[in-house]
Amino acid sequence: MATRKNGQTMRFASPPSILATVSVVGPREGQGPMSGWFDVVKPDRLLGQKSWEKAECKMVEEAVELLMTKSGVRRSELDFLLAGDLLNQIISASFAARTIDVPYFGLYGACSTIAEALALGSALIDGGFATNVCAVSSSHHDTAERQYRFPTEFGTQRPPTAQWTATAAGAVMLGPRGKGKLEVTHATIGRVVDNGMKDPFDMGTAMAPAAADTIAAHFRDTGRDPDAYDFVVTGDLGAVGQPLADELLKKQGVNLEDRFIDCGKMIYDETQDAHAGGSGCGCSASVFAGYLAKNLEQGKFERILLVCTGALHSVTTYQQGESIPGIAHAVSVERSG
Amino acid sequence: MATRKNGQTMRFASPPSILATVSVVGPREGQGPMSGWFDVVKPDRLLGQKSWEKAECKMVEEAVELLMTKSGVRRSELDFLLAGDLLNQIISASFAARTIDVPYFGLYGACSTIAEALALGSALIDGGFATNVCAVSSSHHDTAERQYRFPTEFGTQRPPTAQWTATAAGAVMLGPRGKGKLEVTHATIGRVVDNGMKDPFDMGTAMAPAAADTIAAHFRDTGRDPDAYDFVVTGDLGAVGQPLADELLKKQGVNLEDRFIDCGKMIYDETQDAHAGGSGCGCSASVFAGYLAKNLEQGKFERILLVCTGALHSVTTYQQGESIPGIAHAVSVERSG
Repeated sequence: MATRKNGQTMRFASPPSILATVSVVGPREGQGPMSGWFDVVKPDRLLGQKSWEKAECKMVEEAVELLMTKSGVRRSELDFLLAGDLLNQIISASFAARTIDVPYFGLYGACSTIAEALALGSALIDGGFATNVCAVSSSHHDTAERQYRFPTEFGTQRPPTAQWTATAAGAVMLGPRGKGKLEVTHATIGRVVDNGMKDPFDMGTAMAPAAADTIAAHFRDTGRDPDAYDFVVTGDLGAVGQPLADELLKKQGVNLEDRFIDCGKMIYDETQDAHAGGSGCGCSASVFAGYLAKNLEQGKFERILLVCTGALHSVTTYQQGESIPGIAHAVSVERSG
Repeated sequence: MATRKNGQTMRFASPPSILATVSVVGPREGQGPMSGWFDVVKPDRLLGQKSWEKAECKMVEEAVELLMTKSGVRRSELDFLLAGDLLNQIISASFAARTIDVPYFGLYGACSTIAEALALGSALIDGGFATNVCAVSSSHHDTAERQYRFPTEFGTQRPPTAQWTATAAGAVMLGPRGKGKLEVTHATIGRVVDNGMKDPFDMGTAMAPAAADTIAAHFRDTGRDPDAYDFVVTGDLGAVGQPLADELLKKQGVNLEDRFIDCGKMIYDETQDAHAGGSGCGCSASVFAGYLAKNLEQGKFERILLVCTGALHSVTTYQQGESIPGIAHAVSVERSG
């Protein structure tokens, strides 16, 4: 079989359909500008659970449960679950997988995880290894804060470059070509790019070079121009990282102009005190599953490039003086022809 | 395209070749019964680095560097790196990926990671999305001990059911059919199975039901009998978990008899005070890359089923009273026809 890959980009010969998407978010996200596009807005951050970690896991379980209902894919018809999150040992994904009870691939790409899952899931379907695959990722503000930064009770003041980890899960059911209004046509897999940044309160700057690297690779590999897309949507560079990525792209001759938007800048508004914007695996996953997928379904957009970005550091690497490596994976999603 | 999957098992129509394997291990592993089969035995656990975490990352980098040399696959010809480890945010894999500098999928399956990487890597090649893929996973005794258990300086006494996390990395270069002596023909992807066990000093018992579940699924899905294999090799149930998995399989009518071996029991001998045996992502990865792959290459074995098992808990889930979910993924590796 001839390779379906050029450079860093996989091309799906029979592009998998998106059968359904689901977003489940917390109260703060439900008060933001994306509010009307989310499927479920939870009134509190604990979801009736005893810990934030159990609440995050519950969000994933609920998102996938609702996804099976919306897509009409039964558990017995769901070939694989591809999932991941920010927590140590990706416990939100793995404990949800225990409940969901289908063959499971655990992934870690920090906030790039939903794009990694969509890329691998699409390859499994297009390669003939699956009929239906669920891609899901999540984050929770309080689980991330206490793991990565400070005990949440401290109420530590955050610098303006900091992003706010979203409490959100986004899930996508991929299925055979022709079964849904949207399809995944390409996936560009990122390299790890590190510009030497060490400040975990400015991850937008740390991730911007990886985003620019993957976006440039996508256009190079596919021969497409930016005007092939309604939007190139990063997630989540925020207000500090996005202009830097834009500048890095312009230096390479890629001018996205007003097509360049960012999930981190979209999920909260200026009154919500989120500083540089949203972040977390659930931010781009829920904005994609909500606003972006629904606007594509409704025909308001024809084609987008979703570029999810991840910061691959840990508390340990920070303590040992390491810089923050970034990665970005891109998937091209369009209305079925 | 007709699906190439039955139940939980992917069947590779053009089975990817194993072009080369590399194992890099620590001094204790180099004194054990597998010693002669490893490519590189390090004289100390720091590898000249300033921390154990940096040493683990270095092991991965060295394994992949040597793998490229052995396989003749240049960096520019390496389509994807699939990698993971036990550390929070899989830092060994991601920081090594920064150096290796090829498109990277981060995976987390605890000690099942090398099988997850071989399964996805084989699907990417057989699906036509890649020519050459590197699968690698690692663990380091001291990084795991201080992350999961106690500060290593404590010298805490370990109960006899505990396993010893191996200091090891194992890497496999997958390539097109017909390019190597071995090939990957099937992969059976596990569900998360939890039998309610809560003791992190007895992970063999926690993982045994997942191993039995995946092994039984493999025989059901493929129609094969145990005598299709020279060995069914779990990694790493150890001396406590393996008899339990054997018993669970016999209850389902699957009798592996003396074909059932375990990487955790093979990597150390009784004089090495490893209690129930070895564990860690690097244990099964290095025993496969060393002893198992080399015996297959030499024609001493014809076909094995490698069943890597993972315990999906974290320190947080343990502290919150959760049980330890297990997972196992199996790959069938045989001499090329």
